Amino acid sequence: MRLSKAYLPVLKESPADAQIVSHKLMLRAGLVRQTAAGIYAWLPLGFRVLKKIEQIVREEQDRAGAIEMLMPTIQSADLWRESGRYDAYGPEMLRIKDRHDREMLYGPTNEEMLTALVRDDMKSYRDLPRTLYHIQWKFRDEVRPRFGVMRGREFLMKDAYSFDVDEAGARHSYNMQLLAYLRTFKRLGIQAVPMKAATGPIGGDLSHEFIVLAPTGESKVFYDAAFEAIDLDRAGLDYGDKAGLQAMFDEVSSTYAATDETHDEARWSEVAEERRRTGRGIEVGHIFSFGDKYSKAMGLKVTGPDGGMVTPMMGSYGVGVSRLVGAIIEASHDDNGIVWPDAVAPWKVGIVTMRQDDDASAGAAEKIHAALHDAGVEVLYDDRDERGGAKLAGMDLMGLPWQVIIGPRGLASGVVELKNRRTGDREELSIESALTRLSA
Amino acid sequence: MRLSKAYLPVLKESPADAQIVSHKLMLRAGLVRQTAAGIYAWLPLGFRVLKKIEQIVREEQDRAGAIEMLMPTIQSADLWRESGRYDAYGPEMLRIKDRHDREMLYGPTNEEMLTALVRDDMKSYRDLPRTLYHIQWKFRDEVRPRFGVMRGREFLMKDAYSFDVDEAGARHSYNMQLLAYLRTFKRLGIQAVPMKAATGPIGGDLSHEFIVLAPTGESKVFYDAAFEAIDLDRAGLDYGDKAGLQAMFDEVSSTYAATDETHDEARWSEVAEERRRTGRGIEVGHIFSFGDKYSKAMGLKVTGPDGGMVTPMMGSYGVGVSRLVGAIIEASHDDNGIVWPDAVAPWKVGIVTMRQDDDASAGAAEKIHAALHDAGVEVLYDDRDERGGAKLAGMDLMGLPWQVIIGPRGLASGVVELKNRRTGDREELSIESALTRLSA
Repeated sequence: MRLSKAYLPVLKESPADAQIVSHKLMLRAGLVRQTAAGIYAWLPLGFRVLKKIEQIVREEQDRAGAIEMLMPTIQSADLWRESGRYDAYGPEMLRIKDRHDREMLYGPTNEEMLTALVRDDMKSYRDLPRTLYHIQWKFRDEVRPRFGVMRGREFLMKDAYSFDVDEAGARHSYNMQLLAYLRTFKRLGIQAVPMKAATGPIGGDLSHEFIVLAPTGESKVFYDAAFEAIDLDRAGLDYGDKAGLQAMFDEVSSTYAATDETHDEARWSEVAEERRRTGRGIEVGHIFSFGDKYSKAMGLKVTGPDGGMVTPMMGSYGVGVSRLVGAIIEASHDDNGIVWPDAVAPWKVGIVTMRQDDDASAGAAEKIHAALHDAGVEVLYDDRDERGGAKLAGMDLMGLPWQVIIGPRGLASGVVELKNRRTGDREELSIESALTRLSA
Repeated sequence: MRLSKAYLPVLKESPADAQIVSHKLMLRAGLVRQTAAGIYAWLPLGFRVLKKIEQIVREEQDRAGAIEMLMPTIQSADLWRESGRYDAYGPEMLRIKDRHDREMLYGPTNEEMLTALVRDDMKSYRDLPRTLYHIQWKFRDEVRPRFGVMRGREFLMKDAYSFDVDEAGARHSYNMQLLAYLRTFKRLGIQAVPMKAATGPIGGDLSHEFIVLAPTGESKVFYDAAFEAIDLDRAGLDYGDKAGLQAMFDEVSSTYAATDETHDEARWSEVAEERRRTGRGIEVGHIFSFGDKYSKAMGLKVTGPDGGMVTPMMGSYGVGVSRLVGAIIEASHDDNGIVWPDAVAPWKVGIVTMRQDDDASAGAAEKIHAALHDAGVEVLYDDRDERGGAKLAGMDLMGLPWQVIIGPRGLASGVVELKNRRTGDREELSIESALTRLSA
């Protein structure tokens, strides 16, 4: 991609109304633009990152055996009356009347809708277990939207729902999602600690939040430093290995970690003082096991192995896909801008000519651009006739992992500069060596 | 994918309330399920097809130089007051009040929002031309939703918007999208004829609809049979070739084709009688060139090459992505079910065991399933312990291009059956030959 043909608007000034660093950087680097209170358009730079995160979430759900589908954004109020949540949900639910005065709503979550869908199809214990998921826009009418996409009103979420015939099955489904989440966050390049959590309006008695540590976090968190040593995502663990998954769950559960909502001073005091860690964190995922709360209220029943009717046990599992863009930036930035983890970077490499009007520089840049493109490396070439310093600052702000910097002097001695955005290390090397390094 | 672990519910009975064949088949084969009037959930089978169509649309937009982004579904009413369309739009717009009583709406289209976004960034003629697009859910509150996803209320649409400094540029942007559409529909495996169309509430004086011919179409269409001979998508044509694109436009325009909205009896009478074709058609895309209608109303201006201010010329370009699922079925089905074009089939191959309890059959199926999976061929294996006939009927209904049918008798003589869904041709061949054929 050539910057001169792209739509990558960068703001010169830091936006005054943004309070946290991810919000500031997302506006300045042109990832998003607010179109109404708490509602954002995703400009091409932000869109690319959002799609990469979405795809990693999808791949790890698929690997865990969850099945993708897609539910609509607008729901009938009647569905929510069946579960009793229509009146309970409060003003965060965006309520709508259509042209025939029917009561509708913009879905904040989908327990009701999916339970209603599967009750037409799941008739026997042989139709279970199943975990279904979708990645869809949702709406919560926050009274005071703030912090950009971290607490916006319209947001992209992956939500999965599991259906099992018994408690043991439901526990295994929960553990599979727990592992899928650990793997997802690791691939995204962030450390997210699972913490026992309150279940709130979703219900149930077992729940974990996944918290990214960041000084700007919304919750206070308390955890045992032993967490840092646990191999949370267990490289060799197979999703079919029920005992192995339960052992992982037990280890996660027996190591203290909690948000202020569930913090237990008695258990905390048992953690050795030198291992107690406190800080602030951002919730990026939340999983729930809530038994038959929705299946019972909505009449989902299947025949059991012995011929009697069984009410399936359910769980639900959310990841804030759009929120993750902000959370990753909170966890990975410096004074010059965003520092993307490789897996979610909008492009891997940025090419900068210090003097676009120097024919040798432009020629070298074209050559590198074409070679990387042909090698399947995602590359953004700043081919604009701007000051080199401004172009470098723009690349730093946008946070691509690598910069190839091309200047007339270096070229005269046969080298370009390769800069690592995270470390700031710069190295002079030949074009061929740079290409080899970046194509690896 | 194993059917025993999937969520692919098939209805035994033809749904009584569905009037057209695509709606019937989408419900019966389990592509979608209605969740409220004119609102559908996409079950895994339908979701896979929807994503394939979306990806082809995306790739052809990218190839034409359009840049992807994503705008939100909920918009502020104030945006639409700027263009004057808030009052003009009528009851098809889903109007919403949020908790602070602010007037919002669920976007039916995005001319206003994108014009407002780019006016902050596009300052000079050097920032143009640009064509931006997104693929996002939209809502039109149809008074009487019907025909399933063909005339639903919540629908997925690709909409692109072009910005140019002058009329010649705008014409070229229009021609690029025209070619991208022809290429998109060809890749999707359907013939869509561009027809001069009325511009309606979008405005402007140049517009084409893309119509798929089908007896259940909503519009009457009239066209010159010469259309069938034109090489519409011009294999070698490059998007930078302005004269070549204009020649394509001229040839398309000079061959008569119109819907009843724009039908011109005088011009029609000039078409040789034996070349006159009439029928019914389904609109799957609509492109518009509307000059400065929105840019002028909303104050989008850039400095021109001579320093004066210029109001950019715009166009907008829509493809009904979810509607295409229905339109493709209307154009490609038989008495037994759907016949997917290869490019959009949910899986390329279905494996059916006639007797799942026969160990040799199950073993052969496992082997074929694994080999195709490893070869990167998308495959669905019906491993359920059901009657062979019912399983074959299910595969026909779901419309996968190829079926591998495995029975004890054939296996005894070393063969399986390979069935082409479209032609119905069946052929006995060895497992190795079948694998070679299907991996090609």
